[in-house]
Amino acid sequence: MPDPTLTSAAAPVTLSGVAASPGTGIGPAFLLSAPDLSFDTLTGQDPAAERARLDNALAASRTDLNGVREGARARLGDDAAAIFDAHLLLLDDPELGAAIQETLTGGANAEAAVHGAFEAFIGMFESLDDPYLRERAADLRDLRARVLSHLLGRPLASLGELREPAIVVAHDLTPSDTAGLDPALVRGVVTAVGGRTSHSAIMARGLGLPAVVGVGEAALAGLTRGTPLIVSGDAGTVTVHPDAAALSAAQAAQVAAQAERDRLDALKDREGRTADGLRVELAANIGAPAEVTGALNAGAEGVGLYRTEFLFLGRDDLPGEDEQYRAYRAVLEGMAGRPVIIRTLDIGGDKALPALGLPHEENPFLGFRAIRLCLARPDLFRVQLRALLRASVHGQLRVMFPMIATVQEFLDARAHLDAARAELTAEGVPVAAGIPVGMMVEIPAAAALSEQFARHADFFSVGSNDLIGYAMAADRMNERVANLYQPLNPAVLTLIALTCQGAARHGKWVGVCGEMAGDPLALPLLVGLGVTELSMSAPALLPRREQVLNLNAAQARELAAHALTLSHAAEVEAAVRAAYPDLTPADA
Amino acid sequence: MPDPTLTSAAAPVTLSGVAASPGTGIGPAFLLSAPDLSFDTLTGQDPAAERARLDNALAASRTDLNGVREGARARLGDDAAAIFDAHLLLLDDPELGAAIQETLTGGANAEAAVHGAFEAFIGMFESLDDPYLRERAADLRDLRARVLSHLLGRPLASLGELREPAIVVAHDLTPSDTAGLDPALVRGVVTAVGGRTSHSAIMARGLGLPAVVGVGEAALAGLTRGTPLIVSGDAGTVTVHPDAAALSAAQAAQVAAQAERDRLDALKDREGRTADGLRVELAANIGAPAEVTGALNAGAEGVGLYRTEFLFLGRDDLPGEDEQYRAYRAVLEGMAGRPVIIRTLDIGGDKALPALGLPHEENPFLGFRAIRLCLARPDLFRVQLRALLRASVHGQLRVMFPMIATVQEFLDARAHLDAARAELTAEGVPVAAGIPVGMMVEIPAAAALSEQFARHADFFSVGSNDLIGYAMAADRMNERVANLYQPLNPAVLTLIALTCQGAARHGKWVGVCGEMAGDPLALPLLVGLGVTELSMSAPALLPRREQVLNLNAAQARELAAHALTLSHAAEVEAAVRAAYPDLTPADA
Repeated sequence: MPDPTLTSAAAPVTLSGVAASPGTGIGPAFLLSAPDLSFDTLTGQDPAAERARLDNALAASRTDLNGVREGARARLGDDAAAIFDAHLLLLDDPELGAAIQETLTGGANAEAAVHGAFEAFIGMFESLDDPYLRERAADLRDLRARVLSHLLGRPLASLGELREPAIVVAHDLTPSDTAGLDPALVRGVVTAVGGRTSHSAIMARGLGLPAVVGVGEAALAGLTRGTPLIVSGDAGTVTVHPDAAALSAAQAAQVAAQAERDRLDALKDREGRTADGLRVELAANIGAPAEVTGALNAGAEGVGLYRTEFLFLGRDDLPGEDEQYRAYRAVLEGMAGRPVIIRTLDIGGDKALPALGLPHEENPFLGFRAIRLCLARPDLFRVQLRALLRASVHGQLRVMFPMIATVQEFLDARAHLDAARAELTAEGVPVAAGIPVGMMVEIPAAAALSEQFARHADFFSVGSNDLIGYAMAADRMNERVANLYQPLNPAVLTLIALTCQGAARHGKWVGVCGEMAGDPLALPLLVGLGVTELSMSAPALLPRREQVLNLNAAQARELAAHALTLSHAAEVEAAVRAAYPDLTPADA
Repeated sequence: MPDPTLTSAAAPVTLSGVAASPGTGIGPAFLLSAPDLSFDTLTGQDPAAERARLDNALAASRTDLNGVREGARARLGDDAAAIFDAHLLLLDDPELGAAIQETLTGGANAEAAVHGAFEAFIGMFESLDDPYLRERAADLRDLRARVLSHLLGRPLASLGELREPAIVVAHDLTPSDTAGLDPALVRGVVTAVGGRTSHSAIMARGLGLPAVVGVGEAALAGLTRGTPLIVSGDAGTVTVHPDAAALSAAQAAQVAAQAERDRLDALKDREGRTADGLRVELAANIGAPAEVTGALNAGAEGVGLYRTEFLFLGRDDLPGEDEQYRAYRAVLEGMAGRPVIIRTLDIGGDKALPALGLPHEENPFLGFRAIRLCLARPDLFRVQLRALLRASVHGQLRVMFPMIATVQEFLDARAHLDAARAELTAEGVPVAAGIPVGMMVEIPAAAALSEQFARHADFFSVGSNDLIGYAMAADRMNERVANLYQPLNPAVLTLIALTCQGAARHGKWVGVCGEMAGDPLALPLLVGLGVTELSMSAPALLPRREQVLNLNAAQARELAAHALTLSHAAEVEAAVRAAYPDLTPADA
């Protein structure tokens, strides 16, 4: 029977937004409104007086952040607390500090100096081709708001006031908001702005909270604290003032979803294998040792991609050999003997690293990055390779080189690895024997020449995001050409088929670690083309495992062969849907 | 017997530079030194007074330019004169004028305003991925120097003083220098700066003058007017104070080169066909109707690529249908029944078009350009397609679409062409029947899916420059990754092989119109892979024709098949050189 406090005399209204995190949430609205942080830009101020105002605001922010960090640690754990360690470090960032001081010296007020200096850094992060890195821009906005709130004397809103179950409604959620949030009380999230990769969306998925983002400011204008809501995170809708029928349907959806979760959870320890017996390893993509637990909880059979660049980003120095060793060892030990593919540094170009002082490039996607940078900077590369080899005795390490375009690059990279091994051996440091050494296939040349590469590489992992971008000559971050970023285009499938054929001639295996790996529509095609490892974000693992367990590999091979003869991505999608009528759109 | 005025008591010295234009030149040095155009940047000036100074300098520049233009027309013809028409138009460019005026209004002196406004435009052109377009930056520098020289009262140096045969020695040659140059008197060119695509190098090749560029400022410091020199444009060396032996050798080289030219000229009217009878059409790349004469003089069997974007660049408006029609008709009529492939607008991204107001892109090579732009702007596309179809009755037109990534784009582009034809027919305008409609293969997806594309396209032309860039994920304009731009990499050859195989299945032909087409090392591979049309810059045509006439296609097929099994570009080059030991490095 519907809870009477959640129905309302007002007529139900349905708002539409972006389906950002699946599930159904029912509860009253809790409105989190940001304070007005607008200010006037002044000139001719006394730099010393403004410096003093700024220092007070920075000290107050520091006090805040220490408190928020400990609250986050208690409620959400170390990962959430780490966000505020990062904020505290950013507060003391010398480049940011220098930029602010320069503006103050010019006579600006502290508000204008803080706003402008942060803006430059935010702009840099927002231009990056990596949803995770772009989130650093959200951290900077959040931190700026905190400093400005102290300068202006207008306190930030807080989710700490939440005392009973509710749906959080906000313009957008900042990392600070998230840290104040008690997951036991929050039933769902609704935001005015943002897309699937906004901080709010990522956080909601991470906490398993239903979320609809980007419903628009106007749509939220009529809500007040307590307005009854249903958040349908699968449909991307928010029902305001639901009637009894809507409430019953939502409750039924919750029951069904729980049953579905229980059913999928039962698959957690099943080995990835198709119904007709083809082994398909299902692994997780991670960016930090802390993500190992989540990967294992989602039933990861290994780590298919550990992006080591996150050790390097957001700092002014470079991580040393010991620091890297500890991170790699933590992942290897955490995965307890399961295979772990660690990708060497994939940075440069669009992913800036202040410590390297790289120049701006006209076309960073076609520029000096990843293995190109590492081969040109053996000092940098050697530290990472030594750390990897030292860690190798703590688990089942596989080393992978990114952005390989020529066979020579692969040979050169492996020679550096061999040299590091010889060095360590001479020093008496133990190193595991027989570490497989593979490469990303993300540059069309690597796919076209896979037979030659397979003579040397122990495995391939298709980086579908970049491979699609280069193959179609379309930057998916550029909305004017995003329609050409077509994972199911037969040309993309042809390049993956070439990769698999070349690998097969030398008995090597092929995985996929881009977004295609988690896409239910792509899965039968990839398996049909010969891919035997799929590495994806943790939430996609159980649904994809179920799909693999039900898949007939022979049928998938027929489908894939047919797809290679088609002309359009839409034809491929139609063929997949015809073969598997039960498939729902990508859910990862 | 050596001319005694050209030997010297001083010991011979050899300078090294870039071999920019072949041939051997002997003569005394004529030093062209640029005036000092440095100035102080002032603030707080009277805008009206500075405006008046500027207007005087602009008027004096205009007078100059009219004179230089007429001198250029008399000595070098209409094409050279057109450079100064462009300068005169630039002087009145409203955007440039507005930028200058804005700085003047802010209180700057006229020198600083002119320098800064030009600098922004120069920076834009210099960032373009097209040697020809980057040359517009040289035009702007040249024009700026002229205006500054009038503001500062320091006259520009002039080649007009040259009265007897000499080797011109300069920091670099500007378009104005070139226009003042009498080709009957200049025996060679030596510059301190520049590479093969600098204005000096292009101009020297156009005039058939031996040239060595980029020898360095220090190397030229010891030269004075009259210093005896030998310029070896093939070796890239300059001999200072040559002895009798060096002079004899240089004279012998001149005699041999003339004999070589005469020999190649005799091939002008021979059809491109290998020794064993395979037809290989040798066509010219052009950028303007005025280049037709040069193409025919070099024995072009057709135009393999007419880059229509030059009609659109360097202006604030768009060329109308009639203007375009006249240009296309002029090329078709000029080629007198030989086939002419006209490529539709390949612009956007890095090639800016002010009239379209396109936004900056993070990765312009992977952005909104060429056919992507045209399909999104049917208004623009329709004008060009109508002009092409109207011109079609004046020759043998082939229409080609650039940057095709998906089959749908090709179908959509052709539908626009069909619609334009239907429109014209309804208007009673005659249009040729059976115009072949082809596409560039420059995106890896087009190569990978060539069989599907060949069901629809009448021909392919491989745009090797971009194809290599995308296939290797390397922007060749970025010197940090230029080493990965490898035309002979087996991966690139594999993509061309796929293109030819797909085309052959539907009886379509494949050409190449990038720089690979003119490369003697690539030629046997391309023919061996199945390419039957090569389109290149005019100067490469006769040497490549000779190579084709001597080539055995069956042997080339064997070589190409072998190359596809190799791993490294260096291995491919070695295999080609082993098969054809007489090949010299690229000479076009």
